[in-house]
Amino acid sequence: MKRQVTIKDIAQKLGLSTSTISRALKDHPDISPKTRTAVKELAALLGYRPNRIALNLRNNSTNTIGLIIPEIEHYFFSAIINGIEEVAYKNDYSVMVFQSDESYKREVINTQAVLTNRVDGVLVSFSKETKDFSHFQKLIDNEIPVVFFDRVIDALQADQVVADDYQGAFLAVNHLIEKGCKRIAHFAAPQHLAIGKQRLSGYHDALLKHTIPYDPDLVVLADTFDTARKAAHEILRRPEHPDGFFAVNDMAAIAIIKEAKSLGIRVPEDIRVVGFENSKSAAISEPELTTVDQFGFELGREACLMLLKRLKSEERENPFKPIKKVIKTRLVVRAST
Amino acid sequence: MKRQVTIKDIAQKLGLSTSTISRALKDHPDISPKTRTAVKELAALLGYRPNRIALNLRNNSTNTIGLIIPEIEHYFFSAIINGIEEVAYKNDYSVMVFQSDESYKREVINTQAVLTNRVDGVLVSFSKETKDFSHFQKLIDNEIPVVFFDRVIDALQADQVVADDYQGAFLAVNHLIEKGCKRIAHFAAPQHLAIGKQRLSGYHDALLKHTIPYDPDLVVLADTFDTARKAAHEILRRPEHPDGFFAVNDMAAIAIIKEAKSLGIRVPEDIRVVGFENSKSAAISEPELTTVDQFGFELGREACLMLLKRLKSEERENPFKPIKKVIKTRLVVRAST
Repeated sequence: MKRQVTIKDIAQKLGLSTSTISRALKDHPDISPKTRTAVKELAALLGYRPNRIALNLRNNSTNTIGLIIPEIEHYFFSAIINGIEEVAYKNDYSVMVFQSDESYKREVINTQAVLTNRVDGVLVSFSKETKDFSHFQKLIDNEIPVVFFDRVIDALQADQVVADDYQGAFLAVNHLIEKGCKRIAHFAAPQHLAIGKQRLSGYHDALLKHTIPYDPDLVVLADTFDTARKAAHEILRRPEHPDGFFAVNDMAAIAIIKEAKSLGIRVPEDIRVVGFENSKSAAISEPELTTVDQFGFELGREACLMLLKRLKSEERENPFKPIKKVIKTRLVVRAST
Repeated sequence: MKRQVTIKDIAQKLGLSTSTISRALKDHPDISPKTRTAVKELAALLGYRPNRIALNLRNNSTNTIGLIIPEIEHYFFSAIINGIEEVAYKNDYSVMVFQSDESYKREVINTQAVLTNRVDGVLVSFSKETKDFSHFQKLIDNEIPVVFFDRVIDALQADQVVADDYQGAFLAVNHLIEKGCKRIAHFAAPQHLAIGKQRLSGYHDALLKHTIPYDPDLVVLADTFDTARKAAHEILRRPEHPDGFFAVNDMAAIAIIKEAKSLGIRVPEDIRVVGFENSKSAAISEPELTTVDQFGFELGREACLMLLKRLKSEERENPFKPIKKVIKTRLVVRAST
């Protein structure tokens, strides 16, 4: 069989970098229209075909999907993994999971491992530390389709699936207000993460709708059990403590309930608490926790379906039009409110 | 560089299968001593070196460890993964995780994916369904070091790391008896799994030590939240219900507590309950759950260290002497007893 023409061949002939060639072929805005045209003409002349297609032609597809995820212990993420795997195995794909453990450094190593192992496509939710996304750009440059889920980035040319965090937060806080809460605290996630921003925004707008003033003293950064328990201890000992709490996740909400009970404050009589996730722990907590169901399993299914659609298409779309899918959330009312 | 002599070369020259050659080189008992000698002599003559070493010589090591695990949502398994990754990343290895989801079929697919992706070594805890282990034998035949953890099999030539399930169960039941329990039920795991057998055996021997007769009516197969809740409903409505429960894992124990409370039975006043795992849920449960800590993180660390030791050794040990490491467990006493 004739050797496939590669991006490297085009790069050498034009005296440009492979990354420039790759971007030019994808109509990347960083590359001038003139260069794009020159690259495409030479590519057509040489009979260049994208790498992935070449691989498939040689019947060399690995039928493996790489999954890079911050942590797998978290109920929401493990539900997502199960959703992804349901779709993947049904379509004869294996899923190899890499845990970044919320570390940027590990995530870069994971991305290299995914490249080394020639996966067909990659699903990513990036770490809390990640602020530079060039390792993911490298995947895209290598013609590997990437779909981001939950934690997403608009700057990259890739599909996205997210839960409707804004809507979920709005539902949660609206519910607390309808139950009679007047002073509602929010235990938030870091604000450089979309989920942190969206949930704070939903909290803010639900207050606004009911003309309750926004009080920055009632918003604290506390998205783990330990930090939330500490923050709850401080805030619940204030002379006028809040009568409602909206926590960015279930573990933080459960920490609030635990701390309240240890201070002799009753839930839901004295304070009402809502979480976000609908984890197994929410049903174990006492009282059982009102929470927002993010449908992790569905989200995983959708992300994998989007990736398979890209894998099945003959060539990378040109110009590439990223698709963003938003999964609606649902309030699950239990005894904590 | 001179082409490496492969098992295939030896097989062709002798008119035998590659699998026979591979087993002969490893002194597998299925191969006659005469054949073993013939194979080894020709291998020495041709200058054959095992594949893995050949790979390393060509500096072709992937620095990736494959991990095949029944489920990742389970707290114990996610703790193991974190222990494995701590050791792996410190030694510049990536870990790719494959979830079998307790399915034999998926596990076989995972094993193929691990082979396709040329990992350096594999860590395995097999699925509940797995009764045929030839897919793992295939890894060993391909000179890929394998270490089994938690769910292990003596029939294969591979290292093992397990928690001391027998000792943990003995501690748990002994504790219930010392707290005054006279009729102790056991919610067990399937008996073809070593953990099912070992924990039942520890339960049995603790009763024996205190001359309490073993009553098969008090042992039920129930190792998930739902099956345990159903079984608890049945057993707690008997006229003379047990006053103590030892559950094979925390979720089953929490199901017993939930069901007892819904029937108006108090914990620990009317019944005492012990779990096994020391999961996060054990600390969330009310009352907080007495449980056996299996040290999943430590177990993962040990399994990965054993694998790295095999990866660093020049050649596969011949004859191979599998190492079995047992991690002691510890009783964590909380309010449920």
